[in-house]
Amino acid sequence: MPDGECVAMAAMLPGLADEPLPVPDVADLDLPPSTVDVPATLSPFCSTGPEHRAGHTYGKAYRDVVRALRGDVRAAPDVVALPRTEAELVSVVDWAGSANVAVIPYGGGSSVVGGVEYRGGDHSGDHRGVLSLDLTRMDRVLEIDEVSRAARIQAGALGPVLEDQLRPHGLTLRHFPQSFEFSTLGGWLATRAGGHYATLYTHIDDLVESLRVVTPAGVSESFRLPGSGAGPSPDRLFLGSEGILGVITEAWMRVQDRPSHKASTSVSFSSFDAAVEATRAVAQSGLHPANCRLLDQGEAMFSGAGDGRNSVLVLGFESSIGPVDDRLALAVDIAGQHGGTARAGSGSGSGDAVEAWRSAFLRMPYLRDGLARMGAIVETFETATTWDRIGALITAVRTEVGAAVREICGADGVLNCRFTHVYPDGAAPYFTVIAPGRPGAELSMWDEIKAAASETLLKHRATVTHHHAVGRDHRPTYDRQRPEPFAAALRAAKNALDPNGILNPGVLI
Amino acid sequence: MPDGECVAMAAMLPGLADEPLPVPDVADLDLPPSTVDVPATLSPFCSTGPEHRAGHTYGKAYRDVVRALRGDVRAAPDVVALPRTEAELVSVVDWAGSANVAVIPYGGGSSVVGGVEYRGGDHSGDHRGVLSLDLTRMDRVLEIDEVSRAARIQAGALGPVLEDQLRPHGLTLRHFPQSFEFSTLGGWLATRAGGHYATLYTHIDDLVESLRVVTPAGVSESFRLPGSGAGPSPDRLFLGSEGILGVITEAWMRVQDRPSHKASTSVSFSSFDAAVEATRAVAQSGLHPANCRLLDQGEAMFSGAGDGRNSVLVLGFESSIGPVDDRLALAVDIAGQHGGTARAGSGSGSGDAVEAWRSAFLRMPYLRDGLARMGAIVETFETATTWDRIGALITAVRTEVGAAVREICGADGVLNCRFTHVYPDGAAPYFTVIAPGRPGAELSMWDEIKAAASETLLKHRATVTHHHAVGRDHRPTYDRQRPEPFAAALRAAKNALDPNGILNPGVLI
Repeated sequence: MPDGECVAMAAMLPGLADEPLPVPDVADLDLPPSTVDVPATLSPFCSTGPEHRAGHTYGKAYRDVVRALRGDVRAAPDVVALPRTEAELVSVVDWAGSANVAVIPYGGGSSVVGGVEYRGGDHSGDHRGVLSLDLTRMDRVLEIDEVSRAARIQAGALGPVLEDQLRPHGLTLRHFPQSFEFSTLGGWLATRAGGHYATLYTHIDDLVESLRVVTPAGVSESFRLPGSGAGPSPDRLFLGSEGILGVITEAWMRVQDRPSHKASTSVSFSSFDAAVEATRAVAQSGLHPANCRLLDQGEAMFSGAGDGRNSVLVLGFESSIGPVDDRLALAVDIAGQHGGTARAGSGSGSGDAVEAWRSAFLRMPYLRDGLARMGAIVETFETATTWDRIGALITAVRTEVGAAVREICGADGVLNCRFTHVYPDGAAPYFTVIAPGRPGAELSMWDEIKAAASETLLKHRATVTHHHAVGRDHRPTYDRQRPEPFAAALRAAKNALDPNGILNPGVLI
Repeated sequence: MPDGECVAMAAMLPGLADEPLPVPDVADLDLPPSTVDVPATLSPFCSTGPEHRAGHTYGKAYRDVVRALRGDVRAAPDVVALPRTEAELVSVVDWAGSANVAVIPYGGGSSVVGGVEYRGGDHSGDHRGVLSLDLTRMDRVLEIDEVSRAARIQAGALGPVLEDQLRPHGLTLRHFPQSFEFSTLGGWLATRAGGHYATLYTHIDDLVESLRVVTPAGVSESFRLPGSGAGPSPDRLFLGSEGILGVITEAWMRVQDRPSHKASTSVSFSSFDAAVEATRAVAQSGLHPANCRLLDQGEAMFSGAGDGRNSVLVLGFESSIGPVDDRLALAVDIAGQHGGTARAGSGSGSGDAVEAWRSAFLRMPYLRDGLARMGAIVETFETATTWDRIGALITAVRTEVGAAVREICGADGVLNCRFTHVYPDGAAPYFTVIAPGRPGAELSMWDEIKAAASETLLKHRATVTHHHAVGRDHRPTYDRQRPEPFAAALRAAKNALDPNGILNPGVLI
């Protein structure tokens, strides 16, 4: 983001810096010396170059951006491996196990929860060094089954890279997380990413036919199946395992015909509570909108989809076989029964609010970095809970996190809410907090806000993450949410598959 | 089933007995003496009565029916516990762990895969005795959340029992496996049962919000969540665990408004291959029919839905918000493009073929028992595979299993196929084999047919079970299908949660 834009944006919030922090040059970084020598067999695809090491130090969390801006790369991995084949990847994992080197699987590096940053081992003592295992050279669509509409895709493919390979076949994976350009299939699978669809196929999990996973105990490959009831799902154990059980190298994914019919509109509500009721009614209607995103007043204004007085429900339908205007009309009708006013001229075209929201959605990651450069604290957290609790949860977040922000930052800042995904039994609210930071204290301020937010989620029995993953940042809350017998089972599974404890230590368990 | 009906039915198949075998009286059974004395604290809800022990010996597999007809109850449990509360259930599990008594969780006893029959421990030597843990006294809907449309239901509730409790609220779980009357929520969850919906929500898994599970290592309770991305799903580890990790005692389930609009029809095809193509096109259309069941020529005739020359695709749509005739018309149109002829007058009423199929579906379990009493071998097996493999799979089953039946039974018998559930990327074919058995040799003949069927499924990388579970009968094939690292993880999880190995030993691992 150009410096001028950072300044313009920051002008919307009082208390920020006048000029953005400069982005440091990699040559100026004070990288600690690498303590790891890889064997000659691995060196053709391993690097200890400062660009590679610095570039693989962090994900894209706010704390990562702040530390990167400060030139703090103390957590840099000792070496970055960029295998070109699964055989090379296996040789890395095997060697790391024998050498007691921690292995951090790395796709696009878009983790916002400390998922790719080594912070020490969790129980078995320190590792002798840290290797970042970058999968992006394994980015091919290896096979396409047009009959079943499925594709075998290597885990290191970034979103646009895999879509480019599917497009000539008229197919699409249609998984568009906000990080789409900078995240990989393997990362989505390992973190149970949330995607394009607001209903029904909300997570990447729902698009998986089979997985191939390299574990220190051997390669796990499930049958390609449209459905099965044979024991607990093997794939579901690896989905969300965040690299602690194995490294996903490829997957057969359900792909789709590209949609030929779309219709979308936006519906305004003067009351947020009424908008929530309308959203619930649509979610429970069985209409299955592709888009069903509720923006509260602040979020609607921030994204340019509203004027700050109304909440906005963005609705969209799509199909590859026929018009969807009827379904949109039914959804709009339901929203109208709850006091919503649809934008005039809704239908097959896209409404202004729809476009504004879409544009803001895609730009948000850049905006976040720009705001960080102006000294703002930016925290986004997302969750999910059932409809019966959602009003109380949102009120509590506004009250409790709002109070924490005032106390920590000395100003109200911004606290907006939108729903990213909805279900018949609940919704996934996503909160954005922006407030002025004190230079040098940003990280501890952010930590305090994060802690306040997590406490509120826990108190309301809302999940610590609906689609951002647990990583290292959500560990304290995750540990208190997860059933203890399941934690015991997961630890046991980890010990069986990764007996030396080298895989992404400190994450999940 | 009255004796007269058995005789009439058997007349359709040459080579069967003239008279049905009599059903033995429980007083005539030669039950082995019970070797287990439960402590006084458990005795108020435990029984060693012959009715209880004999009644909990088997599930409802063909081999179970044959052995029951022979009066063979050597596998009877030593004692049956019928706890009324979770606290009582916990006390049973705790005591069994200390006494080295195997615990077989038992719901409706409808397993068709040897899921509730003790056949010895798998590794840690024999158990001192066997306890059947019957959950049917825990059958209450404990709480209903009408806002989120969810209900907290005890695991021992049989299908009709829980639906009776939901009905006054205008709600339904709408999970109708063929065993509906004789199976419980806990059984469905532990075995990943397939239900009412032919698309989308095919398995009970999809209706689960949270689970409560008693394990020897403590009680596991997940948060009620509409969706989450916090690590691997705890619920998905217990779903399909078939009682080896813990005993599911209750669950928050997603329930629904009762449908107010339905439309269904049947479409005939002279070519089975064309019917498969039509079914695939409907499955990939995004129309999400509630019913989309393809019957091959033989299955259509057998159920009274066809004349034996045509395959029949039964289509149904339903909604609680508005008419579904348009969606039915679109699906019929797609089927027509593949050569299908819709029954005249299709629409909101139900067609004759639809009713005939539904009636046959509900009566099949009785039919099976009746045929067994006439000396027939009856084997049903079901699977799932992707569309690209489905034609070859069905051909192979007809050829290879057909040949095995001829060799083993000396007659062609019946070998029919229907699809129970369909997906955008594949389908779940269900096969019925009926052939004349030789008195006294039925079980070994059935074993041989089962082995031939399993071998064909394995060769085509089709799942050993789409919704009947693994139990003990599918173990040999399951062991060869499951990724070995996942097996290692599951064994480790089992050891962590059930260190004494008392829970349903011999199942899954």
